[in-house]
Amino acid sequence: MRLSRSLIPTIKETPAEAQIVSHRLMLRAGLIRQQSSGIYAWLPAGLRVLHNIANIVRAEQTRAGAQEILMPTIQSADLWRESGRYDAYGPEMLRIRDRHDREMLYGPTNEEMLTAIMRDSVQSYRDLPQMLYQIQWKFRDEVRPRFGVLRGREFYMKDGYSFDLDYASAVSSYRRMMLSYMRIFRDMGVRAIPMRADTGPIGGDLSHEFHILAPTGESGVFYDKAFETIDLGNDTYSYENQADLDAFFDHMTSLYAATDEKHDTVAWSNIPEADRREGRGIEIGQIFYFGTKYSEKMGFAVVGPDGAKIHPEMGSYGIGVSRLTGAIIEASHDDAGIIWPDAVAPFHAAILNLRQGDATTDALCEQAYAGLGDAALYDDRPARAGEKFADADLMGHPWQIIIGPRGAANGMVELKRRRTGERAELSLEDTLAKVRG
Amino acid sequence: MRLSRSLIPTIKETPAEAQIVSHRLMLRAGLIRQQSSGIYAWLPAGLRVLHNIANIVRAEQTRAGAQEILMPTIQSADLWRESGRYDAYGPEMLRIRDRHDREMLYGPTNEEMLTAIMRDSVQSYRDLPQMLYQIQWKFRDEVRPRFGVLRGREFYMKDGYSFDLDYASAVSSYRRMMLSYMRIFRDMGVRAIPMRADTGPIGGDLSHEFHILAPTGESGVFYDKAFETIDLGNDTYSYENQADLDAFFDHMTSLYAATDEKHDTVAWSNIPEADRREGRGIEIGQIFYFGTKYSEKMGFAVVGPDGAKIHPEMGSYGIGVSRLTGAIIEASHDDAGIIWPDAVAPFHAAILNLRQGDATTDALCEQAYAGLGDAALYDDRPARAGEKFADADLMGHPWQIIIGPRGAANGMVELKRRRTGERAELSLEDTLAKVRG
Repeated sequence: MRLSRSLIPTIKETPAEAQIVSHRLMLRAGLIRQQSSGIYAWLPAGLRVLHNIANIVRAEQTRAGAQEILMPTIQSADLWRESGRYDAYGPEMLRIRDRHDREMLYGPTNEEMLTAIMRDSVQSYRDLPQMLYQIQWKFRDEVRPRFGVLRGREFYMKDGYSFDLDYASAVSSYRRMMLSYMRIFRDMGVRAIPMRADTGPIGGDLSHEFHILAPTGESGVFYDKAFETIDLGNDTYSYENQADLDAFFDHMTSLYAATDEKHDTVAWSNIPEADRREGRGIEIGQIFYFGTKYSEKMGFAVVGPDGAKIHPEMGSYGIGVSRLTGAIIEASHDDAGIIWPDAVAPFHAAILNLRQGDATTDALCEQAYAGLGDAALYDDRPARAGEKFADADLMGHPWQIIIGPRGAANGMVELKRRRTGERAELSLEDTLAKVRG
Repeated sequence: MRLSRSLIPTIKETPAEAQIVSHRLMLRAGLIRQQSSGIYAWLPAGLRVLHNIANIVRAEQTRAGAQEILMPTIQSADLWRESGRYDAYGPEMLRIRDRHDREMLYGPTNEEMLTAIMRDSVQSYRDLPQMLYQIQWKFRDEVRPRFGVLRGREFYMKDGYSFDLDYASAVSSYRRMMLSYMRIFRDMGVRAIPMRADTGPIGGDLSHEFHILAPTGESGVFYDKAFETIDLGNDTYSYENQADLDAFFDHMTSLYAATDEKHDTVAWSNIPEADRREGRGIEIGQIFYFGTKYSEKMGFAVVGPDGAKIHPEMGSYGIGVSRLTGAIIEASHDDAGIIWPDAVAPFHAAILNLRQGDATTDALCEQAYAGLGDAALYDDRPARAGEKFADADLMGHPWQIIIGPRGAANGMVELKRRRTGERAELSLEDTLAKVRG
């Protein structure tokens, strides 16, 4: 994109309403704009990050055998009465009456709806197991929304659901999702740690939260340094191999990891001091196994091989997609701005034209832009060099291709890596090869 | 995907609640399930169609210079009071009160919100023109939702907005969108005809509706046969060339096209009889130019080159993305089921295993599936051949690769083209080459 023709309204001043760094940087870099308390519009650069994150989730969920669906945002209150959660949910549920005075709600999660869909669609044990997920907007009417997209009211979430015939198969689904989640976060360029968690309002027997490490994280976390070198390769663990899934799960859960709320100082003291790591974390996902809680309450059963009814065992699996945009920034920024991991960056590179209107400089910039296309943001504004440097650092593109009249006369550009600050003088050809990686 | 492990619940019986063919076929082919009146969940095959349509829209809107953004579904009532539409909109607007008793609504369209975003983000004439669009869920609380996704309450829509400094530039944006829309519908494999339209509740001076031809369409349409052979090629009309945009617009609007409501029998009688075409149509998009209506009411102005305030000229541009899934089926089906155009089909091909469990047949099917991957739906169910034939015709995959034990013994398969019914005996290699196209 050409910056002169784009809606990327960067801001120099620190917005007064933003208390934390990711919120400040998302506003300053022109990624989002608040529309109501806890409700945001995503401008072009912000939406590109959101799409990148969603597509990483999709790719790895597909590999893990999950099918994508999409459920509506507005649900019927009657559906939630079947599970007993309509009255139980409290004021965070946004309750609505339509023109016929029917009670509706904006879905905060979808266990009920998908159980009802399965109940209508699936009759035989032959149709299970199934693993389904969606990436859809949800609403939770937080009493005091804050921290930007980290705790918004309308938020974008991946929620997945597994349906299995028995406990062993459900545990296998749970373990498959744990592996898939670890690979998803790895593919985004962040380090996540799974921690045993309470099951909360969804209920159930087994749950893990995933936290990414960020100095500004909401929780203190304690973990074994072995998490820093986990091998998640396809050769090490296959989704199709039960022994692999079990070995992976056993390895994950054998290592110490806890938030400060669940920290066990005795167990911690048994870990060699050299292996202990402390930090802060932000929760970005959670997985639950909860058995037949919903299938029994909602009367979802399939006919088994012997003709007997089986209530499927269920689990649910969430990733905060919009939350991750903020969490990644909390984990990866400096005083000058965002430092996007390559995999989620809105643009892979910025092209900075230091002398707009100089024919040689313009020509080399156009050549660079033609070579990178949509992966690049071309800063073609009639602005000072200092402003372009500051905005590129703020927006956090992994690469900056800096083109001024002196270098351009010799066909040379300066290539800067945002994360390390490393700079090199290179020909345009070598630059493009390096940026395309 | 393997059908045995997929949630594609086909139905043999005609669903009683569905009055029109696309609604019946979408239910029967397992694409959607109703959750409340006029509110649908999209199952895996249906969602693939929705994504295909959305991605065609994205690709061509990007070429036309539009930037994608994403606005929230829940809006503040105060925003709509600024334009005067909050009270004017009527009972189709879903009005909501949050836990703090603030008046909110589920957006039926986004002129107000984007005008407010631009007002906060853009100060100078240098920042215009801009063209922005989103693909987002909307809600209109229809009093009697019907016809499935053709007239749902929660629906998926592409809505775009242009902001220009003067009338000439706004007209250019309008014409660019008309060209982009015609290319979008062409790329989906349907024929669309632009017709001069009333501006309705959005207001303004100029509007066109796009109808696709379908024997079951809601409106009668009358048009010049020249629409059947419109050249939309990039070499004929460039988005960057004003003379091209003008020539395209003049050509489109010089040809007769009208729904029965606006039919002009005198003008019609002046068209040579051989050039007259009559049919039925379904509205799938509409474009509006409405000048400074919103920018004035909402106080959005930029500073012009001479320091004077300029209220930008606006237009808005809609495509019914979820509606199109139904409209395309209305335009393309037969007694046996859906006939998907290649570009939007959920799967490019189905592989029908006629003897599940026969080693040779299974092996050849697996080979075909490995060769096509995610583009194919492999019917590996332990079902009768007749059921597999019927379901493949119902689901409407462009190609069927039919593999039985006799052919498999010689490495041969039968390839059927759904649209024409043509069949051929081919080697697997030739089949894959043909299906990959």
